Amino acid sequence: MATITAGSQIGRSIPRLESRDKVTGRAEYTHHLKLPGMLYGKIFRSTMPHAKIRKVDTSAAAALPGVYRVVTIDDIRTVIPHPYYGPAFHDQPVLADGKVRFAGEPVAVVLASDPAVAEEALGLIEAEYEELPAVYDELEAASSPHLVHDELKPAATFPDLQHLKGRRGTNIALDYKMRRGNVDAAFASADHVFEHEFRTQQVMHVPMEPFVTVADVANGQATLHTASQGPSFVRIEIARLLGWPENRVRVKVPHLGGGFGGKLYIKLEALVTSLSLLVARPVKISLTMEEQFFMVTRHPCTFRIKSAVTKAGKITARKCEVWWNGGAYADIGPRVTQKAGFTSAGPYDIENVWIDSFAVYTNRPPCGALRGFGAPQTAWAYECHMDMMARELDLDPVAFRRMNMLRNGRPQAGGTVMEDADIEASMDLALERIGWNAPLERVSGNIRRGRGIAIGFKGITAPTTSVAIVNVYADGSCVLYISTVDMGQGSDTVMAQIVGEVLNLDPEKIKVIHPDTDVTPYDMGTLGSRSTYHMGTAVRLAAEDAKNKIEELARDLDMPPGSNLPVAELLRKKYGMQAGNIIGTGSFMPDYQKPDPETGQTRKATPFWGVGASSAEVEIDMETGEFKVTKLVNIADVGVPINPKLVEAQLSGAGIMQYGFTTIENMIFRDGQLTNGSLADYKIPSLLDMPKVFINEATRSNQKDGPFGAKGAGESTTIALSPAIGNAIADAIGVHIPDLPVTPEAVYRAIQSLKNAGGH
Amino acid sequence: MATITAGSQIGRSIPRLESRDKVTGRAEYTHHLKLPGMLYGKIFRSTMPHAKIRKVDTSAAAALPGVYRVVTIDDIRTVIPHPYYGPAFHDQPVLADGKVRFAGEPVAVVLASDPAVAEEALGLIEAEYEELPAVYDELEAASSPHLVHDELKPAATFPDLQHLKGRRGTNIALDYKMRRGNVDAAFASADHVFEHEFRTQQVMHVPMEPFVTVADVANGQATLHTASQGPSFVRIEIARLLGWPENRVRVKVPHLGGGFGGKLYIKLEALVTSLSLLVARPVKISLTMEEQFFMVTRHPCTFRIKSAVTKAGKITARKCEVWWNGGAYADIGPRVTQKAGFTSAGPYDIENVWIDSFAVYTNRPPCGALRGFGAPQTAWAYECHMDMMARELDLDPVAFRRMNMLRNGRPQAGGTVMEDADIEASMDLALERIGWNAPLERVSGNIRRGRGIAIGFKGITAPTTSVAIVNVYADGSCVLYISTVDMGQGSDTVMAQIVGEVLNLDPEKIKVIHPDTDVTPYDMGTLGSRSTYHMGTAVRLAAEDAKNKIEELARDLDMPPGSNLPVAELLRKKYGMQAGNIIGTGSFMPDYQKPDPETGQTRKATPFWGVGASSAEVEIDMETGEFKVTKLVNIADVGVPINPKLVEAQLSGAGIMQYGFTTIENMIFRDGQLTNGSLADYKIPSLLDMPKVFINEATRSNQKDGPFGAKGAGESTTIALSPAIGNAIADAIGVHIPDLPVTPEAVYRAIQSLKNAGGH
Repeated sequence: MATITAGSQIGRSIPRLESRDKVTGRAEYTHHLKLPGMLYGKIFRSTMPHAKIRKVDTSAAAALPGVYRVVTIDDIRTVIPHPYYGPAFHDQPVLADGKVRFAGEPVAVVLASDPAVAEEALGLIEAEYEELPAVYDELEAASSPHLVHDELKPAATFPDLQHLKGRRGTNIALDYKMRRGNVDAAFASADHVFEHEFRTQQVMHVPMEPFVTVADVANGQATLHTASQGPSFVRIEIARLLGWPENRVRVKVPHLGGGFGGKLYIKLEALVTSLSLLVARPVKISLTMEEQFFMVTRHPCTFRIKSAVTKAGKITARKCEVWWNGGAYADIGPRVTQKAGFTSAGPYDIENVWIDSFAVYTNRPPCGALRGFGAPQTAWAYECHMDMMARELDLDPVAFRRMNMLRNGRPQAGGTVMEDADIEASMDLALERIGWNAPLERVSGNIRRGRGIAIGFKGITAPTTSVAIVNVYADGSCVLYISTVDMGQGSDTVMAQIVGEVLNLDPEKIKVIHPDTDVTPYDMGTLGSRSTYHMGTAVRLAAEDAKNKIEELARDLDMPPGSNLPVAELLRKKYGMQAGNIIGTGSFMPDYQKPDPETGQTRKATPFWGVGASSAEVEIDMETGEFKVTKLVNIADVGVPINPKLVEAQLSGAGIMQYGFTTIENMIFRDGQLTNGSLADYKIPSLLDMPKVFINEATRSNQKDGPFGAKGAGESTTIALSPAIGNAIADAIGVHIPDLPVTPEAVYRAIQSLKNAGGH
Repeated sequence: MATITAGSQIGRSIPRLESRDKVTGRAEYTHHLKLPGMLYGKIFRSTMPHAKIRKVDTSAAAALPGVYRVVTIDDIRTVIPHPYYGPAFHDQPVLADGKVRFAGEPVAVVLASDPAVAEEALGLIEAEYEELPAVYDELEAASSPHLVHDELKPAATFPDLQHLKGRRGTNIALDYKMRRGNVDAAFASADHVFEHEFRTQQVMHVPMEPFVTVADVANGQATLHTASQGPSFVRIEIARLLGWPENRVRVKVPHLGGGFGGKLYIKLEALVTSLSLLVARPVKISLTMEEQFFMVTRHPCTFRIKSAVTKAGKITARKCEVWWNGGAYADIGPRVTQKAGFTSAGPYDIENVWIDSFAVYTNRPPCGALRGFGAPQTAWAYECHMDMMARELDLDPVAFRRMNMLRNGRPQAGGTVMEDADIEASMDLALERIGWNAPLERVSGNIRRGRGIAIGFKGITAPTTSVAIVNVYADGSCVLYISTVDMGQGSDTVMAQIVGEVLNLDPEKIKVIHPDTDVTPYDMGTLGSRSTYHMGTAVRLAAEDAKNKIEELARDLDMPPGSNLPVAELLRKKYGMQAGNIIGTGSFMPDYQKPDPETGQTRKATPFWGVGASSAEVEIDMETGEFKVTKLVNIADVGVPINPKLVEAQLSGAGIMQYGFTTIENMIFRDGQLTNGSLADYKIPSLLDMPKVFINEATRSNQKDGPFGAKGAGESTTIALSPAIGNAIADAIGVHIPDLPVTPEAVYRAIQSLKNAGGH
């Protein structure tokens, strides 16, 4: 301990605590788990996007030797009277209940001791449907008479959604509003008004570890082993579903093979728990990679953005209308609609702002949170819009942004005064790293080059709570209890560094206990870049509580101040032997004020700001539309990086992911049927697909109220990446592509349309 | 929650929380556990009581197909340089190290995936020994030149044993002294001096679940699943053995099938952990019922007791010399020697006391703690001695006891002033319940009847520490974290009642987390009747801490005092949703002052007093010596019983156990070889063996500083039971039997010797 000094643990790139377990194959994943007597479940899915279920004939499947039971919603209802779930709305039946709302929806489950038998039996189930008119497009669905749900059913969990209860006759699950200043007047008196529409596509999380849950319900106790980013939330929701108290539901998460927002809230857990309760045996369901397309995806959205601009380039008003295609079940879509709606006017200082953001039900697979919580979709629109206006006004896009940029000390459109948001510094670093001012390298023939810049920001889900416990053992070794899920982002390591910093311990010797709701205290979830700031603060408080108790013990033992006896010696003095513990607890919820529901205005909407800036350089074949991103720079303001190496991995990981969403990933539907629902057809980027120059860097910053100056880093580089590439392509070819993904075909068509229009 | 009112949880005989899990067979025991890749170990044991090991030939065993490896101490030493363990002395090698010290000592282990293969291979191991002179009797060993150990090696854990370090040339591991007043002068001026010698036999714990440990050591982390009464202690000792910090050792105890002191400290865990470290695979060893005879047993002892008495019957001095036969390894014997030595003058108010209590090594299986920690052995002596003196002095044994009884407010021989010790009330109740003053029923022929009374007390191991955590979830449901091991005594239930009482919750709805050192905080061990008082207090403090935090939360939320909003509503108000926890912690160590090592005197030796009184009625066949205990009454002062039904189960359970030790159980040795080492030969009592009238009752009492007035109940009825029966037999036949067990043969011989001596 002698070598550990204050301040030495922050900014240290120690290796991940779990590295050795992972490389030796000893790391436990839920997929490995087998319980005695466990049954495997395989899901029979709807082939119809919207239909009444006339009949499900399970008799042949049930008769297959080795099949334990075939289960439909009628069976579930014998043990759970109202088998509906969902984080924001209780709209999703555990299995299809009389109708199906998307192609791929679970209709029945075959249970067998041998998963191959269960799989085989799926082919013997016959379902008869009566097809219903379906809606797939968010704009169309918003005003369609064809309803996905008859009535809105907001979860009691969220008081602010209760006004929607019982609303009927609409596919709009939620309408978020922000109103600031007088938009109409500003547009009326504007020098210029620009309006554009952008669209983004449906994509998927593709965690390396597909969804998997094992539930063991017996003797009034439910134990779940599940690949979840939010064990505390799962516990509360499963308790609600079962009608049991929280302390009879235990949710354990071992190592997690990626989540990216997909494994949040409640997913497979509702179904698997219901099955285990029904058959009184442990049940496991593990999805295939492909089945994940039907679990949760990222919202497509349509974004109409309109800005009023003075001759000099000052934006005086902005109106945003965003329609979020939530698919058949709300999942956390209403919150995405609110949170991404909230920042959809971009990181600009605009007097008059009008935002409408709509969560829309359609007959597609459900959409939820995916790394960025809607911010990347909105930034695609507002940052392409910025460049399109700059082009029209013949302004330098950087100068145009700088002129309108939201700076610390000024209120964001929702009223919260910006603090600790390094937007300009991030942009400057993105410009510097790509060599913005250097001339573009000349290329010959049909190749054109271009550069683009984009910035973006996001608010953080609020208010949320984290609780931590630090236990210092009798020999001074230390254990940390948190429900933050380390899914590869390195949270265990960062939290151990925070404890080490407070208690002067080597963080590599601190043990972090994996989430287990019977063991680790409450955390809202590992989501929305919140862990380092929220849980990090709870961990700091818990460690400080332990430190105070250690100092108190020293005083009780009449140690002179500054004698700094190690804990082990203090406890030995106190108890006469190696015995006892020092237990510190910490609980944290940031300052927050609920926004006015009509105007979205509040004093404090977000605990901190996620800030990203990206710059890109592209090379385009003007004959074919094929393009290459030759340089890609992602900059984020993460406050003080507690572990710079892990921050870099987060920034580059988010960048790679968003790069796929920008250039190749796209769930393609025909009549509500996913046509590329396999990883042979739906491609994600590999490292070889990434630009040769790929820089990911954090600004030198400080989140004053974060733990040792830190804030979240997991999403910031997803925000500005797509428009940076979009703007670079437009810089090269002279026209903007309004929809994601940006494919060679789209580029080719844009070039052709420009030629046809007589452009350059 | 509305129906729960303050004070309503104490004195409620709610069923055990785990009842349903146990009767449905879902309760987890370590015996059930299988880990992937796990090897089973079978132990090859010494056939010699004391010998040098010339050679252990394991080649044939190792060559048996299916054998993974055969391990001796030389293998262990490649991974653990000093493979010795033990709670008080580090005298015990993980496997025999160059010599064996008792017949049955582990010499080698066969590891195989199939336990039957491992068992078969044992027969192929050949060991060659060079026999050494052995000592078996505690008196003989105390002065023998034949040494069991060359040198004493006290554990660093206990500072008060350090003066013994390096002591050589003796089999006496520890000599405990108590000196009060002037014994020599008192004897010199006495009216009467009586001196008697008593002996007790070696017996065993016989838990229904034999010893079993699974150890999984990998990647610098050791996880043990073990049938232990002391997981915190095991963790500290395993960490010491491995040279690792505590936070890299995890010890889990699921349900435990009885312990009775046998599963305390460190037993199989040292060997199994060493094996797993060596082979880098999980290893399991489960003993057979019979192998338990070689793990740990109860100390035989020889007790010379001498009293000076006035004509009127006042005892003015007492000298006690107790030799404890600890077997080949000290285990916790030195502490038994101290603690039972401390009360060996009995619960009497005697001015001049001299006690010597010796822990003696012999070549027998090791002896440790067994329900009562030596108190039953000493009470056998001092209470038979009381009746023998009363008989000689022609005094009524009850009046004689009453005249000399130690009463609250008077110092015990060690200096601690008695408090909350209902000795006389216990005796009175024992007398009342057996109908002491009613004439004995007449019987015809060779049958004689007799009645006996006895009292006894014990101090409690001090100082020891317990820590508890109470977690109140967002819906108000509650979980308690303790390392107290519920091995059938009902501690989970009692602790839940204490939480329920403080927090106004239904204790049957509180979940108690089973010991897991990664989860539950430190507890010294489930031993010596300490849990209800020590852990119960820690639990009370933890619940009160949670209660204070709840009240603080209500104040923070500006609730008017007395509004008494449920926790669930407070947390919902605070966090805007069902979220968060309230965590309370409690840590308790009772007041204690270390006794002077030369005189044993101290202000505070024990946190409370265990008090028992027994009365018995017997019927004896004067021709054959066969006898029947027709009535047996056990009374204990347990303070306020928190769960009267569980207290009764504890009192009767202890009574049944001690009844076996009194009348039938006896480990019989010939030349150091156990001759009845099977449960076909070594019988324990069944319910049918118990007296028809068998009353177990607690006095109406109050332990003022115990949780809600409670104190421990697990051992008190072991103390006075044997002498009550011994005194009843003497009442019937006219002569005392000095040795346990009291068998028909011993009674027959006593009757014969009395006849030969011309007695009645």
